[in-house]
Amino acid sequence: MKVTIYEVGPRDGLQNEAAILPVEVKAEFVRRLAEAGLTVIEATSFVHPKWVPQLADAAELLAGLSPAPGVRYPVLVPNERGLDRALECALGTGGVTDIAIFGSATESFARRNLNRTVESQFDMFAPVVERALANGLRVRAYVSMCFADPWEGPVAPERVVEVGRRLLGLGCAELSLGDTIGVGTPGHVEALLDAFEAGGVGLDRLAVHFHDTYGQALANTLTALRRGITVVDASTGGIGGCPYAKSATGNLATEDLVWMLDGLGIETGVDVRSLAATSLWLADLLGRPSPSRVVQALAKEI
Amino acid sequence: MKVTIYEVGPRDGLQNEAAILPVEVKAEFVRRLAEAGLTVIEATSFVHPKWVPQLADAAELLAGLSPAPGVRYPVLVPNERGLDRALECALGTGGVTDIAIFGSATESFARRNLNRTVESQFDMFAPVVERALANGLRVRAYVSMCFADPWEGPVAPERVVEVGRRLLGLGCAELSLGDTIGVGTPGHVEALLDAFEAGGVGLDRLAVHFHDTYGQALANTLTALRRGITVVDASTGGIGGCPYAKSATGNLATEDLVWMLDGLGIETGVDVRSLAATSLWLADLLGRPSPSRVVQALAKEI
Repeated sequence: MKVTIYEVGPRDGLQNEAAILPVEVKAEFVRRLAEAGLTVIEATSFVHPKWVPQLADAAELLAGLSPAPGVRYPVLVPNERGLDRALECALGTGGVTDIAIFGSATESFARRNLNRTVESQFDMFAPVVERALANGLRVRAYVSMCFADPWEGPVAPERVVEVGRRLLGLGCAELSLGDTIGVGTPGHVEALLDAFEAGGVGLDRLAVHFHDTYGQALANTLTALRRGITVVDASTGGIGGCPYAKSATGNLATEDLVWMLDGLGIETGVDVRSLAATSLWLADLLGRPSPSRVVQALAKEI
Repeated sequence: MKVTIYEVGPRDGLQNEAAILPVEVKAEFVRRLAEAGLTVIEATSFVHPKWVPQLADAAELLAGLSPAPGVRYPVLVPNERGLDRALECALGTGGVTDIAIFGSATESFARRNLNRTVESQFDMFAPVVERALANGLRVRAYVSMCFADPWEGPVAPERVVEVGRRLLGLGCAELSLGDTIGVGTPGHVEALLDAFEAGGVGLDRLAVHFHDTYGQALANTLTALRRGITVVDASTGGIGGCPYAKSATGNLATEDLVWMLDGLGIETGVDVRSLAATSLWLADLLGRPSPSRVVQALAKEI
């Protein structure tokens, strides 16, 4: 079995950290991640800098990257204006090849994060996906708040499936199912994957994206893997986190995931010690220790 | 399905914390744990105070406890001298009813922790278990270093099974399989449980004891639960940890476990918010924040 780790540290991680890093540091971060063996690295976001000042240097970062062979560098685009900026960009000597859009399973989060309803988000995404496909790009769609949201509580799996099917219907290649506030447990994961299968969506179209806010991310990931999911989102060092979650703990740490996959004999091509060394380097620059258990444990031997 | 949480905070937790708490605080800690719904609370240890000064007040603590109905309060005894001290003790108006002994699966840890070989540890434990049973006590046996130890590396499952069978043969009612340094992953758990079944040991005789040093404790626990294990060790607030492990992170936090079990609809009778409130109270007294993700996440709403 082989698992693809979809690394979100440079985007989902850094956009939720208080510190704003210089573009050269971000480029070095992305370079180190590829060197450690990661093959999909979400590099940045073309969200308006007013909302995410941490990633205001998206175009400059991409222009300065030297893409490693076999590595994809998706970028988040929120809307058509973001797509325009992404399409204008150089990525090394070529252009952007992969984008991600960010949808919501709940009305409350759609309103707060997108200033849209669940229904009208598809109107916003449709031309983005259409033009991206016309330009030869691969499109991933995040579905956020797949288990619960802070305002509405638990979310029915069928609602998530409906949102996911609409996004796939627009032409997205993959859905990333996000437990944005980290409250889900393995039974919820089973129920959601059951609902997708019942809804006719193959598990090969799905990725999982767990937050460790309540310590459940790795147990949830294991549950998804046992069901056949082979794409898992993680953030090196566990940096970032949802600004709406109740604590600073955020994304599943890539190191904690790789430790488990290594133990299970599941191939990732990623060197956990190299990643942990990068997290220790980055923690100094971010001004806070990595919340990753593996990084903390390996700190004394690196 | 029902799971029994075997709470080790007052013993395994406090013995590995730098701070030494007053006996009244420990009694309050134990009282709060029972109030939160825990039904098995390992209260203290009769290890020589020279080795574990944190628990030198074992007899005084037990004499001051008012056992809650339906709650068991096991105590650790390392040897016959420890058993003598435990048998002399009052626990409320009665006496001690449950003890635990602490064995090793590896030669290196047996030498360092017990000053014995793996073989000769049984000579030490035999009269302890025999006399405990003669006095009507229930005996649990910990098997430490079940997956690897810091000196010998990986441990063959068959070796652990052999040690476990010998301890059961002495008359122990239950084995607690410990990943003392926290390096194991779900595949190792499967392999160890397979080996016990192949060795003719029923899974109803087994408990699991995971450390979160590398973030794997909950995924490992889930794996054991899926196999039918129904007794899980955990430490409220995640306090403690093995002094030989490479970082300060230690036992699986009871709160993180209860969060998962609640989500799975598995009955424990334990109130997670009550436990987290106790961990926040205790963290102030120990002078360090709880490493439990759930405690950190709930801190803002308690």
